[in-house]
Formats: sequence, C-alpha cells, structure tokens
Amino acid sequence: MNHRELHRPDPKLDLVLEREVDVPRELVWAAWTRPEHLRKWFVPRPWSITKCEVDLRPGGAFHFTMRSPEGQEFPNVGCYLEVVPNEKIAWTDALLPGYRPSEKPFFTAVILLEPRGKGTRYTAIAIHRDESGRKQHEAMGFHDGWGKCFDQLVEHMRTM
Amino acid sequence: MNHRELHRPDPKLDLVLEREVDVPRELVWAAWTRPEHLRKWFVPRPWSITKCEVDLRPGGAFHFTMRSPEGQEFPNVGCYLEVVPNEKIAWTDALLPGYRPSEKPFFTAVILLEPRGKGTRYTAIAIHRDESGRKQHEAMGFHDGWGKCFDQLVEHMRTM
Repeated sequence: MNHRELHRPDPKLDLVLEREVDVPRELVWAAWTRPEHLRKWFVPRPWSITKCEVDLRPGGAFHFTMRSPEGQEFPNVGCYLEVVPNEKIAWTDALLPGYRPSEKPFFTAVILLEPRGKGTRYTAIAIHRDESGRKQHEAMGFHDGWGKCFDQLVEHMRTM
Repeated sequence: MNHRELHRPDPKLDLVLEREVDVPRELVWAAWTRPEHLRKWFVPRPWSITKCEVDLRPGGAFHFTMRSPEGQEFPNVGCYLEVVPNEKIAWTDALLPGYRPSEKPFFTAVILLEPRGKGTRYTAIAIHRDESGRKQHEAMGFHDGWGKCFDQLVEHMRTM
C-alpha cells in the first residue's frame, strides 16, 4: 500500500521529521514497538520514561509516563491506529484505547519506515487538528525534541 | 482476533444495537461497505442519502450527505479505522481522513458481524467520549433510528 499517498503532509497543519540512517528498519520498528526499547529513547534526556505499556494492535493502548528532571510525572495515553510491521505505525491521542473519542485531542503520529540499502528512511509526521495545534507543537520544540529522540533511538539500537 | 474483548460496551458511555438475522454476513458486509447499498438503507426514510463516498481502508474517508424530508442537506465525514472483511468495520468522526483530529468529535462506530448458521449476529456499538454524548445520541433516537435503518438494510439485501 502506498502510505505516502494517504499521508501527504499539509505544511500549515503538520510537522515532519525525516532522516536516513544505516540502522535496519527491523531495528527501528523494534525501537518503536517494544517497551524495553521505548524507555531508552522516547523522551529527550534528562527526561525519562517511568512507565510504558504497549498493546500493539489497532484500537490497542499506548501508555507512557514521562518524568521531568525535577521528578514530575506526566502520564499519557494514546490509541494505536495502524500496525504494519517494519513499515508503518500510527497512533493518536484523539482516541482512547478501543477508539473512544478523547477529551483533549492534540495530534496523530504516523511513522513510516522505508528501506534504503541496509538502512532506513525514517519519516515521522505529527498531524494536528488546526494551525494553532501545529504552532503549539512547534513552539514546544518539535524539531529539536523529535530529532534528539531519534538520535537516542539510533544510539540505543546500535548497541543491539 | 477477539473483537469483543477490545470493545466491551460501557453502559454509561456506549449505545448498542444487537440483532440476529437470516441474511448472510457477506451481504451485511456489502451493505455497509458499498455506496450503492448504503444509499438504500443508511438513514431512516423519508430521509435520504444524496452523496456517499467510501475509501475502504484504515485512514480512508467515509463521506455521506443526509437529506431531510424538507430538502435540507447535512454532509458528514468520517475516517475508517478498521476494515476486516465480513467481520468488523470501525469508523469515527473524531478523526478526518488520514487520521487528522477533527473539530467536533461525537462518536466512533464499531460494527461486528458473526456467523449464526446461515445468518448473522449483528452488533453495532456507538462509542462516546462522555455520558452527555451518550445521552444526546439516545435523545436523538439512537435505538429507533439504528433499528429502523437495520430493518431497511435487511429489506434491501433480501432483494439481492
């Protein structure tokens, strides 16, 4: 399936991180789908992940709690939408597990993995409801934050 | 996969229509997924459907315009979440096509089809964000409306 055709980013509403790395996409997939890996890279240090639960199927729960350097905890819950091994993972906070509409929708994440030689072309798209959502996410440091996290992912998976 | 385990209705938040009919589930599936069928049953007469477009894949668009007996038109757009032929279809208005969070989320619909002899056990679950959403949908006539539409579906598919 052509995932890109369904997910053409709209520059007004969406934020995109694109990278090419020499890490095989099976490892990038594992990093995104296994809690023991997610804990190692999913928030920019010195933040950390104190809880991570993955029910990897459409409608399944993605729970993670982020801990600030000062020790404050921020629990999050999302719902997986699509799980295509080594190709695509999509989840949103607009739905709770089992697809229940949530109170405070902010964004949907679509992660696309494509082979590039023995490595991976990585595309992460953050999809917002409106322009103010995109701007808020940008002001929160999307590009630096998601970029730094991806560096952490690569560094961690190189140890595998 | 056990779809029921993921979609246990919460009586405070969800509304459920359950029926058993002697129509094979392949026909019920066709009724739910093909615009030429949806036009015939998807709103209670004398309402009608004037436009219906189906992009039947996760993330794909479900467009339909309802026309009141007085001639007023009400366009709707939803996003398909799961498409499991002859078993399960799920869509929501909490997301637009491509999974963009929507402005006015109201509910997610999960339709489950199970074989019962040569017929079908039909379960339609409307999943709301909160109790007020469930109550509003109930007051709009969920049980009568979805029940009448299902009767229309059965009547229409018997002509196939």
